Amino acid sequence: MLINGKHYRSIWFDKSDESVKILNQSKLPYEIEIKKLVTLDDFASAIADMWVRGAPLIGATAAYGFAEAIKADSSDSRVNTSYDVLYATRPTAINLKWALSLVFQEIRNIPQSQRYLRALNLAHKISDQDVETNSRLGEHGAKIISSIAENKARDEPVKILTHCNAGWLATVDWGTATSPIYHAEKRGIKTHVFVDETRPRNQGALTAWELNENGVSHEYIVDNAGGHLMQHGEIDLVIVGTDRTTASGDVCNKVGTYLKALAAYDNNIPFYGALPSSTIDWTINDGLKEIPIEERSHEEVTHVQGLFKGKITSVRVTPESSPVSNYAFDVTPARLVTGLITERGVSPASAEGLKKLFPEKA
Amino acid sequence: MLINGKHYRSIWFDKSDESVKILNQSKLPYEIEIKKLVTLDDFASAIADMWVRGAPLIGATAAYGFAEAIKADSSDSRVNTSYDVLYATRPTAINLKWALSLVFQEIRNIPQSQRYLRALNLAHKISDQDVETNSRLGEHGAKIISSIAENKARDEPVKILTHCNAGWLATVDWGTATSPIYHAEKRGIKTHVFVDETRPRNQGALTAWELNENGVSHEYIVDNAGGHLMQHGEIDLVIVGTDRTTASGDVCNKVGTYLKALAAYDNNIPFYGALPSSTIDWTINDGLKEIPIEERSHEEVTHVQGLFKGKITSVRVTPESSPVSNYAFDVTPARLVTGLITERGVSPASAEGLKKLFPEKA
Repeated sequence: MLINGKHYRSIWFDKSDESVKILNQSKLPYEIEIKKLVTLDDFASAIADMWVRGAPLIGATAAYGFAEAIKADSSDSRVNTSYDVLYATRPTAINLKWALSLVFQEIRNIPQSQRYLRALNLAHKISDQDVETNSRLGEHGAKIISSIAENKARDEPVKILTHCNAGWLATVDWGTATSPIYHAEKRGIKTHVFVDETRPRNQGALTAWELNENGVSHEYIVDNAGGHLMQHGEIDLVIVGTDRTTASGDVCNKVGTYLKALAAYDNNIPFYGALPSSTIDWTINDGLKEIPIEERSHEEVTHVQGLFKGKITSVRVTPESSPVSNYAFDVTPARLVTGLITERGVSPASAEGLKKLFPEKA
Repeated sequence: MLINGKHYRSIWFDKSDESVKILNQSKLPYEIEIKKLVTLDDFASAIADMWVRGAPLIGATAAYGFAEAIKADSSDSRVNTSYDVLYATRPTAINLKWALSLVFQEIRNIPQSQRYLRALNLAHKISDQDVETNSRLGEHGAKIISSIAENKARDEPVKILTHCNAGWLATVDWGTATSPIYHAEKRGIKTHVFVDETRPRNQGALTAWELNENGVSHEYIVDNAGGHLMQHGEIDLVIVGTDRTTASGDVCNKVGTYLKALAAYDNNIPFYGALPSSTIDWTINDGLKEIPIEERSHEEVTHVQGLFKGKITSVRVTPESSPVSNYAFDVTPARLVTGLITERGVSPASAEGLKKLFPEKA
């Protein structure tokens, strides 16, 4: 997608210096910083410290990291260490394990001298596939937006709420939740996006920023506001990304998603998860019982980052004496999910629906 | 309640210099600043700029403001101007109108020379009654907490979620949502309070601060986290304040309350509004249709205030180019409310329940 009118991916291999580059998202939307990742530590930090975030982008970064980590030393022990270090960075993200396993399978039984290039090529392929996958799911999702638009006056936009950043910044390109929106806009369908701030970390600021860079009408709201807007007919549709989806259609996504799903359900508003099928965990049926929820740094809650006199500044918002907790995700049960937008089409949020679309997994 | 072990009210008449004093809550919990209010403008600013907040405290402040505004000039025209200026400060707060009308009725037909003292005495009375009312509703609410405690192991606290600050800082003393908690603690019942941050304005920081000053176990969470905690059995009870309650039991409170009510309902957790009956609007039945929702300054959304290097600092959290909106309240329909804790006892959230408790209003 676009930044200042120029096309970018969120991770790319720069042939001019044969290195992997990313946008440092921990500084967005305040500063546009391109980071060169070289060492295993660079990649592990990029994932753990959320310079990159979002399941698909984490997967692509892990694959590139695995490749670059074994460039100088492709021994079995280096392969194992690299896998372990990268795997430990974000336990909830299923794409991390998926991408690392793909690379591991690709290189384990080949001569050491071929491992780096094979891993690198696979990382390229994972990136390209992510772009292709998200573009396709966007086309399927755009049909949902289009059918809502058909029941509206010609100049009235389809009003969509989204939570967190499941935008192109969370993937290699297009985004998941945003891809249907970008595709609808390409088809000339007007949209207006309500962007949840998404405490902690305020990733809604990223969504607002990327929507603006790509010319999509939007407004930024606090996480508390969505229910009120739904009660008053201000939302036509909710689309969220998902970090992990169960075989039964439960959606694990940034904490607070469940609250918006409840409000959508209470107001008869369709609620969709948008996801590449790689984020479906076919081994899990009960998301609430089976998905471990990552507890992240308390500083994400005690502090808020923003701009003060032009500089990125972090202010403490909690009283020093008050304990905090920080559960990063929640699980929205399938019963509250209208459907799942995937690269193969839109499925009901159910085991039957998903099996029909992905019969090879049944 | 206590600050540094010393007892305070949130507004008081200081006999030493015959003036009204408040805690400037816009600086809490970072700085404890006592403000002296003298002119009509002082009082209007105190309410509009939220140096004082919370329906009952707004009422008491308006009453004192009305009195002080007519101290030097008690003419009819000054009385009318003072009423109008104070009434315009916060349109949603029903206590504002209630307190101003009480004072107006008290002074309209008496000689000008008696007006100031009569108004001042009424302001004292409104303050004292608020303290008494909140103490009583706290005793009724404590019974709910006590009955939950009875079904728990002896050393396990009753886990209560609250939204916004309906603490003693929002009233003259005791608070509304917090009063049952403070009374339960006085009876030796252990509680643990999950405090919603409550964007925008993060009034949860006030709640966390006052709970800490009064020795109540608590933790500060982002607004998005409550649903997850409820899904995992971490919340026994939700108690919120209300800025306005309809005759049918709909609860209008800080935006986001509705989302927590939905989650409580979905997880079979009791959800109570705690309120002095003065905040019941007996003329309104359908809260969603009939209560106008105040849209407040966009800066509350675009900026977050906190401490940076020991100083209160406001950082911009939204991209410059992104529009925002800021609806300050939402309405929780009575169907999601387990009950209303009032100074006369606990009522079902229904017209019948409220009429039974307040037959004189029927």
